[in-house]
Amino acid sequence: MRVLVLGGDGYLGWPTALHLSDKGHEVAVLDNFARRGYDAELGVESLVPIESLADRIAAWHEVSGRVISSYEGDLLDAEFLFEAVRDFAPDTIVHYAEQRSAPYSMIDREHAVYTQHNNVIGNLNLLYAIAEIDPSIHLVKLGTMGEYGTPNVDIEEGWLDLEHNGRRDRVLFPKRPGSFYHLTKVHDSHNIEFTCRAWGLRATDLNQGVVYGQRTPQTALDPRLSTRFDYDAVFGTVLNRFVIQAVLGQPLTVYGKGAQTRGLIDIRDTVECIRLAVENPAEAGEFRVFNQMTESMSVAAIADLVADRFPGPVQIEQLENPRSEAPEHYYNVKHTGLVGLGLEPHLLSDTLIESMFDIVGANKHRVNPDKLRPTVRWRGALKS
Amino acid sequence: MRVLVLGGDGYLGWPTALHLSDKGHEVAVLDNFARRGYDAELGVESLVPIESLADRIAAWHEVSGRVISSYEGDLLDAEFLFEAVRDFAPDTIVHYAEQRSAPYSMIDREHAVYTQHNNVIGNLNLLYAIAEIDPSIHLVKLGTMGEYGTPNVDIEEGWLDLEHNGRRDRVLFPKRPGSFYHLTKVHDSHNIEFTCRAWGLRATDLNQGVVYGQRTPQTALDPRLSTRFDYDAVFGTVLNRFVIQAVLGQPLTVYGKGAQTRGLIDIRDTVECIRLAVENPAEAGEFRVFNQMTESMSVAAIADLVADRFPGPVQIEQLENPRSEAPEHYYNVKHTGLVGLGLEPHLLSDTLIESMFDIVGANKHRVNPDKLRPTVRWRGALKS
Repeated sequence: MRVLVLGGDGYLGWPTALHLSDKGHEVAVLDNFARRGYDAELGVESLVPIESLADRIAAWHEVSGRVISSYEGDLLDAEFLFEAVRDFAPDTIVHYAEQRSAPYSMIDREHAVYTQHNNVIGNLNLLYAIAEIDPSIHLVKLGTMGEYGTPNVDIEEGWLDLEHNGRRDRVLFPKRPGSFYHLTKVHDSHNIEFTCRAWGLRATDLNQGVVYGQRTPQTALDPRLSTRFDYDAVFGTVLNRFVIQAVLGQPLTVYGKGAQTRGLIDIRDTVECIRLAVENPAEAGEFRVFNQMTESMSVAAIADLVADRFPGPVQIEQLENPRSEAPEHYYNVKHTGLVGLGLEPHLLSDTLIESMFDIVGANKHRVNPDKLRPTVRWRGALKS
Repeated sequence: MRVLVLGGDGYLGWPTALHLSDKGHEVAVLDNFARRGYDAELGVESLVPIESLADRIAAWHEVSGRVISSYEGDLLDAEFLFEAVRDFAPDTIVHYAEQRSAPYSMIDREHAVYTQHNNVIGNLNLLYAIAEIDPSIHLVKLGTMGEYGTPNVDIEEGWLDLEHNGRRDRVLFPKRPGSFYHLTKVHDSHNIEFTCRAWGLRATDLNQGVVYGQRTPQTALDPRLSTRFDYDAVFGTVLNRFVIQAVLGQPLTVYGKGAQTRGLIDIRDTVECIRLAVENPAEAGEFRVFNQMTESMSVAAIADLVADRFPGPVQIEQLENPRSEAPEHYYNVKHTGLVGLGLEPHLLSDTLIESMFDIVGANKHRVNPDKLRPTVRWRGALKS
């Protein structure tokens, strides 16, 4: 199949492009390099050095003999986007090209506006590009488990069979997102569902858990194929950050008591989930939702796991939670859709964490420890 | 109370400002005159001539002795918005300042992007203005019954007491909006609910039905106080448009069989609902939702009512439905919240329609009949 990966220079977009290319698909990536720009803005760098997109693509050709083509530009530039979609003529578009950090979206008004504008309008342009150029294109869209929040009921996969006052309907599962970033994914889901219903588009919305890990079978083939690895408090996800803190001899920073529970997924499973969604497209008119996670764990349990596996001493420090989230809550998520398509999950009880210690150890001289602690507070917009 | 009415030059914003001023509140209006700009773009005009904002405000001062102040600018201009909120120091902000036409949002990609950007980002700027300047300000936000769509279950007032697999939670009522415009109101509702939860803001979200009528006790005092009256297929709402078509001797244009049912509200009840919400604010941290409608009726029944009341002959013509909506459906809406605050509804069985015939008759020379028929098709984005 011909697959266009939007955001294909990013943490997950790049390994996804490699995985799909490795499996024989014709792959192109599209990126505006905004993610590299956030690094410059925040004064941080990926823990693992990463090559330019051109050098990555050249290395992949050298290693695999396969060609990945590329488009450089912004989804907000509709003319560019339409031209790229026309030129590559994809069967599937995988859409990672959004600002993906909750703390970044909560820095201040400008960052909230940037995030909502960039994500919602970029996705809206994409829906029009698909509708006007080729409505049979399957959209595979990255969402987040954070769309749901932490309801006191079981979380279904996107849709809910609702019974109310003796009548029934199938409705979108109610959402309770926890940041302006998470809200953009809720807005996107609603916009996409409408175009499936009104225009007959086909889409798979992947509500992804917190991703951990840095290596996939393809990125491990050559150091030039590495994907980024974020350790800072703005873009670093919780498990990755804990591993880095352990190796650096810094305390693992747990927000609050750490009883908040999140869905997790190994980066190797992420790229495989995308392949499964791409190769098993939604029907025309179908808004299909999968919860792209393989297990749930509390933040405190993740910290304990890292402390237990790390060969040296590890301190755990509870910080006042900078976010606005339920400190303790019910969390029971259905995530059988992707397993039904063939996913064989890598669980945290596997050996992965130990391999992460090695990656971090080899690059720990690149860390700025000041960037590990949270500076963005959800209540920051309120005058005191 | 001090009340700032955003969009205070519009169809409902202006009568709302007058009603609140008449009831003794200190009122300011803020507007960027976008609504008058849409007229220029579409080549139409309000059926009833309207004065400039400055002349309206002067006429109100002459008639009532009361002062309404004004701010001219755009919610997308955060600096302007923050300055206006600081300067007027309102207790309540009533937010009408959004692009409000579903067909306008569906014209093409540019209009969809304009609508989502204008509405969502304007509202987001407003939330930051309230949070940073005075979080005790009560936001009274205009939404639409169209956020819900037409589910096969009873529609509650914004929130749903959900029981699922033996557990319970109170969740936002699931939404199924029918246009990119309606989607903006869903996005706004989610953004606002988050700021109530995370920042402790207080908000009332009013999911309004289709408004009909053109006169309120205050606008009727002087012709210079008239509010606009839209008859065109883009901005004209269904009952108003049918009345105009009847007077002009044009067929009433029913989309499809007309079995689609909608919530309705008299313009005199709209302005009273706003007063009730303003004078009975939500609690700090509360996201309060009311369904601002007083009765439900099918489009075919509305056409029959107009035909029945009009003294001359009336034709009804069924057009292919340009929208994407369920042709027949269950519709049972709870709308007791505003009645609980004291609303005494004017129902369609009152005499209002006859008075509308007079208004239209006096201005029918201003109608361009070409503008009565729908030209925007929901499926227009798809290549054929």
